[in-house]
Amino acid sequence: MLHINLNRNQEESLAEQIYHELKESIFSGELKADEKLPSTRGLSEFLSVSRNVVMEAYEQLWAEGYLYAKEGSGTYVSDGICFERKETASPDKETQSDNLLFPSKRVNFRTGVPDLNTIPIKRWGQIYKTVTETLEGRSLDYQNSFGMHALRKQLSIYLKRVRGVSSRPENIMIVNGAAQAFSLLSRMVGKDEAVLVENPISQGIVYTLRNNGVIIKTIPVDENGIVTAALPEKPPKLIFTTPSHQFPTGVVLSIKRRIELIEYARKHNCLIVEDDYDSEFRYEGNPIQSLQNLDPERVIYVGTFSKILSPALRMGYLVLPECLVAEMQNEKYVADIHSPVLEQLTLAKFIEAGYLTQHIRKMKGIYLKRRNHLEACLKEKFGEDVSVTGTRSGMHLVAAFKSIVFDAELRKALNEKQIFVTTLGDYFLNDNVNSGQAKKAGDQALVLGYGNTDLKAIEEGIAGIAQVVRAAKGNIGN
Amino acid sequence: MLHINLNRNQEESLAEQIYHELKESIFSGELKADEKLPSTRGLSEFLSVSRNVVMEAYEQLWAEGYLYAKEGSGTYVSDGICFERKETASPDKETQSDNLLFPSKRVNFRTGVPDLNTIPIKRWGQIYKTVTETLEGRSLDYQNSFGMHALRKQLSIYLKRVRGVSSRPENIMIVNGAAQAFSLLSRMVGKDEAVLVENPISQGIVYTLRNNGVIIKTIPVDENGIVTAALPEKPPKLIFTTPSHQFPTGVVLSIKRRIELIEYARKHNCLIVEDDYDSEFRYEGNPIQSLQNLDPERVIYVGTFSKILSPALRMGYLVLPECLVAEMQNEKYVADIHSPVLEQLTLAKFIEAGYLTQHIRKMKGIYLKRRNHLEACLKEKFGEDVSVTGTRSGMHLVAAFKSIVFDAELRKALNEKQIFVTTLGDYFLNDNVNSGQAKKAGDQALVLGYGNTDLKAIEEGIAGIAQVVRAAKGNIGN
Repeated sequence: MLHINLNRNQEESLAEQIYHELKESIFSGELKADEKLPSTRGLSEFLSVSRNVVMEAYEQLWAEGYLYAKEGSGTYVSDGICFERKETASPDKETQSDNLLFPSKRVNFRTGVPDLNTIPIKRWGQIYKTVTETLEGRSLDYQNSFGMHALRKQLSIYLKRVRGVSSRPENIMIVNGAAQAFSLLSRMVGKDEAVLVENPISQGIVYTLRNNGVIIKTIPVDENGIVTAALPEKPPKLIFTTPSHQFPTGVVLSIKRRIELIEYARKHNCLIVEDDYDSEFRYEGNPIQSLQNLDPERVIYVGTFSKILSPALRMGYLVLPECLVAEMQNEKYVADIHSPVLEQLTLAKFIEAGYLTQHIRKMKGIYLKRRNHLEACLKEKFGEDVSVTGTRSGMHLVAAFKSIVFDAELRKALNEKQIFVTTLGDYFLNDNVNSGQAKKAGDQALVLGYGNTDLKAIEEGIAGIAQVVRAAKGNIGN
Repeated sequence: MLHINLNRNQEESLAEQIYHELKESIFSGELKADEKLPSTRGLSEFLSVSRNVVMEAYEQLWAEGYLYAKEGSGTYVSDGICFERKETASPDKETQSDNLLFPSKRVNFRTGVPDLNTIPIKRWGQIYKTVTETLEGRSLDYQNSFGMHALRKQLSIYLKRVRGVSSRPENIMIVNGAAQAFSLLSRMVGKDEAVLVENPISQGIVYTLRNNGVIIKTIPVDENGIVTAALPEKPPKLIFTTPSHQFPTGVVLSIKRRIELIEYARKHNCLIVEDDYDSEFRYEGNPIQSLQNLDPERVIYVGTFSKILSPALRMGYLVLPECLVAEMQNEKYVADIHSPVLEQLTLAKFIEAGYLTQHIRKMKGIYLKRRNHLEACLKEKFGEDVSVTGTRSGMHLVAAFKSIVFDAELRKALNEKQIFVTTLGDYFLNDNVNSGQAKKAGDQALVLGYGNTDLKAIEEGIAGIAQVVRAAKGNIGN
């Protein structure tokens, strides 16, 4: 006989409860194949529910194939449905946090993140709303994998004016942030080919390239950028570089080296990836023109709105040499067809109305104050013991200390003080003796991001570092 | 001597013009390494411009390393900068079109696209604006690769209620449409492993899987869905299936087969990918519960908002078995870190406020009318010669004709009449004798999408098909 427990106070309707109970009885084998079920009238009387309730449950089970009906005879259990149903594993951990990637500290000198509280997000929201008010139906269909023409046109004009980038809307591809650009570019690299990256380098890029199965070779950087004399005899497929503001050292690639790099690429038929991640914020002198300007057919220009607007938007772009247009269009199609449309149209209007330029100007003022304050605090606390470089643009600088090594102990003390820093050494790939030494030497320098670190936090952070350093020296003295 | 042509009516400032002319002269070798430049005073008098203009140009060239200064002596051309600069290739073609993927026809029976003119996009825009008005700064930072918790929570509730999907927010991952889900899942498949797909199948999925380097094996489909008796001895890594409404045949996978499929997956330790692309629109009977409900640890559930809202949003999701959570989080991070945040928060509010359910109900009414009209038109024009299947849910159906083969000639005629259709045969992978025959037989059936085809277009389209068919038969008769 059937065991059906009904609970009249549950959220589930009575029909749903009967449906589930019967289904479980069939799965468990309690109700066997070809067993006859009670009539709807009989079961409804037995359970004291209306006949409609039972009929609803039977119909659903019938529709899903758990039951079958014989005309004039009744309802039977289908064959082959005795089955051990699995429930979801109970949660190991419940988490509601969205920001999982970064350490949450009192003072955070993280690099590569803009001020999150001055993003003109309300204006952005207004423009987005305006976009939806005048949108044509076909803009809500699948689109070209390159992205929306309106945005690519605005970018082409903007990049020419601000970065000297030579482009047409037709070779600008909109992607989900620079990370996707690097991921798609990885797919250009064959199994036996390598890519060449600057050493030191952003950890994120290395992670992305490695996880895309790409073989990574490194080339050192000095005060003029990539050491072109060290370019390998066997050419890589792609050369990744940050010529405007090397990450993390902050040096600028000299014009002579730029030319040598491009001539190498021409001679060996390889391509250069120019990662122009934060050159919009230049404090001294005019902006240095992009490397891409020297040879648009040898340089893939990668830009992002993560640093000038917000990383949460996941908006970036590639300016592609003609030879890569078709291949990359296919790669983007395969990855996710195209990037979301409405925010592309919003960004196009945002640029066209001059809000981007206005926001960059405003942020440049804010970041310049932070940079100056950071330099002043460092000088105040460390005097001649510190030398600061890489300050002419961007949202981070390098502070090298004469006789301080940020070893495990010092880092632990900073961590306890809730101060997040990285050392220059953290960004070195340790792939040969030289880079191993450079990595070690790099632990005497801090890479201090100030994009999302306000004046008060900067002051507090540097004072905290000074305290920790002094306490450690005191220990050594003991 | 220098040749500098200034044009006072150009958009470029005079300083920029001088800068560019000098740079070109250095690149071309007209100005040689270590050659002395005229003084700023001398050049300004010669060009009849203010001295500041020349100084600005010199400073920029100096900052970029084209020139160097000797104290008390003047300004010189740097060494090693004679260089053949490349311009962008002139455009092969100029295109402003965004919608490049699909043929633009008068009557379009495309599948997989919703009605683009009834999407509540203004409401969506309002909610987005509201989201930006109350946003905290940290929501604009980089986020968890799984996506925003607020949305995952809403999805978990929605999927339980509507599809019987068993999930927690912690194993729901937000991705850029189902295409990205398939792309990320491809990366789970090892070099020597294969995936099994239904035959016939969506061309888009096959394209995505193939371009991700995955080996594809096929399994036939009959009126009860995947033919489980044909499951291979050597198990695939993943089995792709559309159990609620097989694409394109429209059949529903029977409960017996569902159980057999899951037992096969359990026995052979493989995973099933349930592509639940359009089951929200069910016209007859209650919705069939998801396959995932039978075993959440064996089934990866893939959902998309491309069919119930808009493909342009690029929003989809995966419900992952516990065993894939960490690996897929890493894959999403490597692909593009996470999906855009603001539209995720918008969708969360959209679902929570009941607008999604409301929209689905509305669209179900619209699509049901279209389906009925399409069936009626087919019956009217083709009578007993047509049989229609796969109509119980979704936005397309299959119309099989007794004695009509949609061969190249017939398709050409339809094309000329500006009517876009596909045949069932178009969706067959021709990988063995049986599927080759099925493909050929499939050219007697049309797959007619009515998601974005209004009543008038449906009528016009079927009348047009009837005309073309009759004209062709007339020809045969001649």
